[in-house]
Amino acid sequence: MGLGPGDSSHVTPAAKAALDQARHLIGYGPYVARVEARDDQIVHATDNRVELDRATHALQLAASGEAVAVVSSGDAGVFAMAAAVFEALENTESDFDSVDVGVVPGITAMNAAAARLGAPLGHDFCAISLSDNLKPWDLVVRRVRAAAEADFVMAFYNPISKARPWQLGEILDMLRGIHDPQTPVMFATAVSRSDEAIKIVALADAKAEMADMRTLVIVGSSATRCIPRRGGDQWVYTPRSVAVSA
Amino acid sequence: MGLGPGDSSHVTPAAKAALDQARHLIGYGPYVARVEARDDQIVHATDNRVELDRATHALQLAASGEAVAVVSSGDAGVFAMAAAVFEALENTESDFDSVDVGVVPGITAMNAAAARLGAPLGHDFCAISLSDNLKPWDLVVRRVRAAAEADFVMAFYNPISKARPWQLGEILDMLRGIHDPQTPVMFATAVSRSDEAIKIVALADAKAEMADMRTLVIVGSSATRCIPRRGGDQWVYTPRSVAVSA
Repeated sequence: MGLGPGDSSHVTPAAKAALDQARHLIGYGPYVARVEARDDQIVHATDNRVELDRATHALQLAASGEAVAVVSSGDAGVFAMAAAVFEALENTESDFDSVDVGVVPGITAMNAAAARLGAPLGHDFCAISLSDNLKPWDLVVRRVRAAAEADFVMAFYNPISKARPWQLGEILDMLRGIHDPQTPVMFATAVSRSDEAIKIVALADAKAEMADMRTLVIVGSSATRCIPRRGGDQWVYTPRSVAVSA
Repeated sequence: MGLGPGDSSHVTPAAKAALDQARHLIGYGPYVARVEARDDQIVHATDNRVELDRATHALQLAASGEAVAVVSSGDAGVFAMAAAVFEALENTESDFDSVDVGVVPGITAMNAAAARLGAPLGHDFCAISLSDNLKPWDLVVRRVRAAAEADFVMAFYNPISKARPWQLGEILDMLRGIHDPQTPVMFATAVSRSDEAIKIVALADAKAEMADMRTLVIVGSSATRCIPRRGGDQWVYTPRSVAVSA
């Protein structure tokens, strides 16, 4: 199940019901910490990058008859735990035939960030994880290049971390070779939380240091526009139409 | 604001609050019909394909001091009304400086469909509208080809309608020239509603008639897998990892 971006006003009733029905809450520490667990619930807060162990543990508990919620931030199906659960279901030798699996969607980071920024995902877009922990860096580069050349708006998940400090800078440099320097680049950090930070810059001025682990980066298409916003900031949106060129 | 895919269990508290605070509810007929309006609320149900008029009307009401909710299905920022509101804000000559605009996200169709299917969006993916009402068909074809060649999972919004009967068939034929014939193609219709229908077929067997106006189509990548599901159906998921090839 997915908790949405952060604030409890974005947790759906279906997600809340999944939490309420569970006896075990399993997930990455900072995510399960967002759940107000009852006294009769058992919280299993685990480290990052142990997704498959965590998924297997959840399935083992469920196979033993326990009600389990695997907790993701955002949407469980977008660079999160749902795929890990199915990987464990397919590849573990244990017998999980008795386990009833279900996925509860949530509001994923790019939709929450887009709402905060305006409507930058108002036309065709891609979601790409910039992490090369689980795929070759060449593939990341190839996909970003293909998406930029086909003029998709792009949302980058996992843009940067201590272990992956240079990847976002390389991607921004590559994009400067493809897109107009005025293309809007949006850094949306901790959206809907108390430490939310939003930064909108031109591609020419975008720097990797503007992102941290909690940032969702959106790069506009050639059609994406910035317009004045009441209060002095900007709205960013991508129009629904693309004109037929001559 | 976005109502999510259909069932009220996917309407967030933030979306519900936006509805509660509004005196006017404006949107496409079938979407506003999903809201249980209070007696003191005024419902403006309009036809499809008048998005810009509807957005301008909402801004005019708001500029006159009224509290207005523009109602979308799914997420307001994904092929929905948020972009239309910003287009009206930028392009209408009226003075909307007094209007406080905000966007409330919702669960978009592809995330709801993916949860129902398993985790097909578990790795890099694109969202593409197949409608050529607002963009040239050549651009749709170019984007789908680029996304398929870069091995993205693809979610197709607006796959087919009475006025656009042949487009999805042409796209499926093109994809048969790029992808393995066993690539999973998913047709998720009216997800979370009483008439929900799910169909999972190999690309070789995918036909445009499997979709209608309420269908979200997902086409897997080369990594997307089908595994047995309790009860006889299948789960579809895209693993988080891509191996480095030799």
